[in-house]
Amino acid sequence: MSIVTKPRPPIAFGLAAAALTVAVPAFAAPVQGSGVAWDIVEGLTTEIGPRPAGSSAEDRARDWGAQKLKSLGFQKVAVEEFKTRAWTRGPESAALTAPYAQPLAITALGFSVPTPKGGLKAQLVYFPTLAALEAAPDGSLKGKVAFIDHAMRAAQDGSGYGPYGNVRRQGPTIASRKGAAGVVIRSAGTDSHRNPHTGVTTFARDVTPIPSGAVSNPDADLIARTAARGKPMAIDLTLMGKPFPDATSGNVVAELPGRDPSLPIIVVACHLDSWDLGTGAVDDASGCAIVTAAALAASKDGQTLRTIRVLWSGNEEMGLSGGGGEHYVRLHGSEPHAMAMESDFGADKVWQLKFNTAPADKAMADKVKAALWPMGIVPHEGAADGGEDVSAIIKAQNLAVIDLGQDGMHYFDLHHTPDDTLDKVDPLALQQNVDAWAAVLKVVANEAGPIGKATAKAE
Amino acid sequence: MSIVTKPRPPIAFGLAAAALTVAVPAFAAPVQGSGVAWDIVEGLTTEIGPRPAGSSAEDRARDWGAQKLKSLGFQKVAVEEFKTRAWTRGPESAALTAPYAQPLAITALGFSVPTPKGGLKAQLVYFPTLAALEAAPDGSLKGKVAFIDHAMRAAQDGSGYGPYGNVRRQGPTIASRKGAAGVVIRSAGTDSHRNPHTGVTTFARDVTPIPSGAVSNPDADLIARTAARGKPMAIDLTLMGKPFPDATSGNVVAELPGRDPSLPIIVVACHLDSWDLGTGAVDDASGCAIVTAAALAASKDGQTLRTIRVLWSGNEEMGLSGGGGEHYVRLHGSEPHAMAMESDFGADKVWQLKFNTAPADKAMADKVKAALWPMGIVPHEGAADGGEDVSAIIKAQNLAVIDLGQDGMHYFDLHHTPDDTLDKVDPLALQQNVDAWAAVLKVVANEAGPIGKATAKAE
Repeated sequence: MSIVTKPRPPIAFGLAAAALTVAVPAFAAPVQGSGVAWDIVEGLTTEIGPRPAGSSAEDRARDWGAQKLKSLGFQKVAVEEFKTRAWTRGPESAALTAPYAQPLAITALGFSVPTPKGGLKAQLVYFPTLAALEAAPDGSLKGKVAFIDHAMRAAQDGSGYGPYGNVRRQGPTIASRKGAAGVVIRSAGTDSHRNPHTGVTTFARDVTPIPSGAVSNPDADLIARTAARGKPMAIDLTLMGKPFPDATSGNVVAELPGRDPSLPIIVVACHLDSWDLGTGAVDDASGCAIVTAAALAASKDGQTLRTIRVLWSGNEEMGLSGGGGEHYVRLHGSEPHAMAMESDFGADKVWQLKFNTAPADKAMADKVKAALWPMGIVPHEGAADGGEDVSAIIKAQNLAVIDLGQDGMHYFDLHHTPDDTLDKVDPLALQQNVDAWAAVLKVVANEAGPIGKATAKAE
Repeated sequence: MSIVTKPRPPIAFGLAAAALTVAVPAFAAPVQGSGVAWDIVEGLTTEIGPRPAGSSAEDRARDWGAQKLKSLGFQKVAVEEFKTRAWTRGPESAALTAPYAQPLAITALGFSVPTPKGGLKAQLVYFPTLAALEAAPDGSLKGKVAFIDHAMRAAQDGSGYGPYGNVRRQGPTIASRKGAAGVVIRSAGTDSHRNPHTGVTTFARDVTPIPSGAVSNPDADLIARTAARGKPMAIDLTLMGKPFPDATSGNVVAELPGRDPSLPIIVVACHLDSWDLGTGAVDDASGCAIVTAAALAASKDGQTLRTIRVLWSGNEEMGLSGGGGEHYVRLHGSEPHAMAMESDFGADKVWQLKFNTAPADKAMADKVKAALWPMGIVPHEGAADGGEDVSAIIKAQNLAVIDLGQDGMHYFDLHHTPDDTLDKVDPLALQQNVDAWAAVLKVVANEAGPIGKATAKAE
């Protein structure tokens, strides 16, 4: 609709305007939070913004982070750089050209290779599932672009991202193996906006990397409806992103020293890099904010017994086997650790709790459960596993882990999209995370007895 | 987060895949509706897509519409073309360059003029309101870009679009008058996605048109937060859209003849054109779907007494004083009309009812109220005014009007954005619109006595 779009002479506000400029607030500012965690998310998203691995923005974010951690009273603040393979986005666009002309909202997947100059014009072949693509005869997609659909739905524990995320992780390799010249997937996301979800893909060694992109859910719906009409489809695809081999990333590491420096430490992690499309508010400035604010809160009334170390990891998103978690082990793998935990699932409230602790540490686990019980956080079956930023140190030392599971119902609305921005962070939910993490750290960082190795073997 | 993004060998599905391809549905199709109204929205959005005024897509949409109306049994189906001024989008991008480097999600406003080659690099000056901009001294913005913020909120009756939409309608003229080289506004929208809202602006005759764009709400939040830090801001702005003077648009008109062709007719309208960013599902394929399906439903059990004419108007969005509503009057202004109604506020349920009918027609109005009462639709104070597509004929003949007000709480999440797509249309809500409109048409198109002129004078 276009209510009152008729040209009207601009109103001469005159005196009324002068009065108004006094009466109105200086800034029509959105809802704001406060406190350490909010300041970190607000600062990183406002003063740095997107910080893809290997970029100058990620470098600025390291400096910003080191400065922030020092100002908060952390000690042994260190920037620990490393070389990594990375990827950079280029111009990208796509359109259905047959049977109907329709622009498509598309974005390249990380480690996609570029389309030919002038774009890739090809038949588009619809596959409802990854399994259907896998079942296509070898060579049957020669010169064509495969479209892979799927049915990811929101889940509180984020469990859809495992199986449906495989469309992004495995689809390009499978399509290439069938001879495809390119691949387009339905975004691994649960929203209904024209903002496709990027994310890293990978190519098996025996296949040729091909241009690989994701369209938004509404665009995937359009392709599905078009395919259902049974007429041949064609696409014009431009994805100019490409890998670059020798990028610099880095971790920021800092400590709140414990009263007994001889005891194995507790490491709490997040990642500092983000995808380029948004500003990495929920993925994962919030994680850094939560673990940092919680470490401070846990030691607010005096040093904890054990040292708490925070790790703001570099290049989690494109890290594969060369990210910040691995670099942390290279530098710190021989130092005694007692436990590792990670926050990397947004900023919504913690609702579930999982352990991978030794049976001998049941009393400690019970204390953690009791501390979280009043906050509505319920223990769940299944082993805790940390996440990308701590998986290497967990594996190296077979560390005990506690996972604080956040509500993921809306996480995959935002994940890896332009919509990952500060306004999506609820300051009260963020603070609930800090409170929950602080409660856990007060227990584990003050545990006097030995903390045993993990029960379940890390994968 | 990046759960399980480690490279894993693609799974060889083998036999399981073959089994799966039988078990899975052929298409992972989204929720679908059915019936005449759904078919129109689905068809226009799938087979035509974006159809900006004056484009070849709008032309295809006219052919599509004429064909559809004929197939539904409408008579005197006519495409009535006219020349109009229009506007076409070009490449567009923007970034804050100081004090922090941040890409901005931006889109040009209709009738923006292009930025200089290489982009417009300028200081960005923050104004919290249109009134604050108006209060700036003349010439004070010379060579600068004005940013205009505002505080539009969602409202069920869409009432925020009047005052806050003025930032888009009047802001560019006011900024130009102050000497600005360009203007950027917070989108006139209520969502939190990185999809800015376009829409037409207009320049007063005495000012130089300037490049004019809108950023998304999260980007406007970022600008507001940055401005609050007090450091000078700079922008790099590229908006290459430009007007073109001699475009072809057109209306599609069709009738369901009444039993008494001598009686003044009922005209029900919508608009066929859409903004280019989305596929015009809620603005306004839904309106065309609703009025068309309702006209058919009202005459399902036999011809109505009066002829019902549907008008699918061309160039509503950029029409200003030269759109389809005016062309309708040029061709049909001398034909006797009894009443005009329009649907152009999305596809959510009708909740309120307004009249601009003669006091002598109270019995007819009471019948309309009674028919809608069981559907949860409540009469409201305030005169009905139709909308852009019928305002010219209403004014020309001082026609009676009934407005069926749709729930607008989410309309300005989608309006003029890429997100205006089919998935936003709830088939049940769409059908409620059809049922409500059909109920009204059964009353007014079967009104035997004279239908009086409007009570309140049309603006």
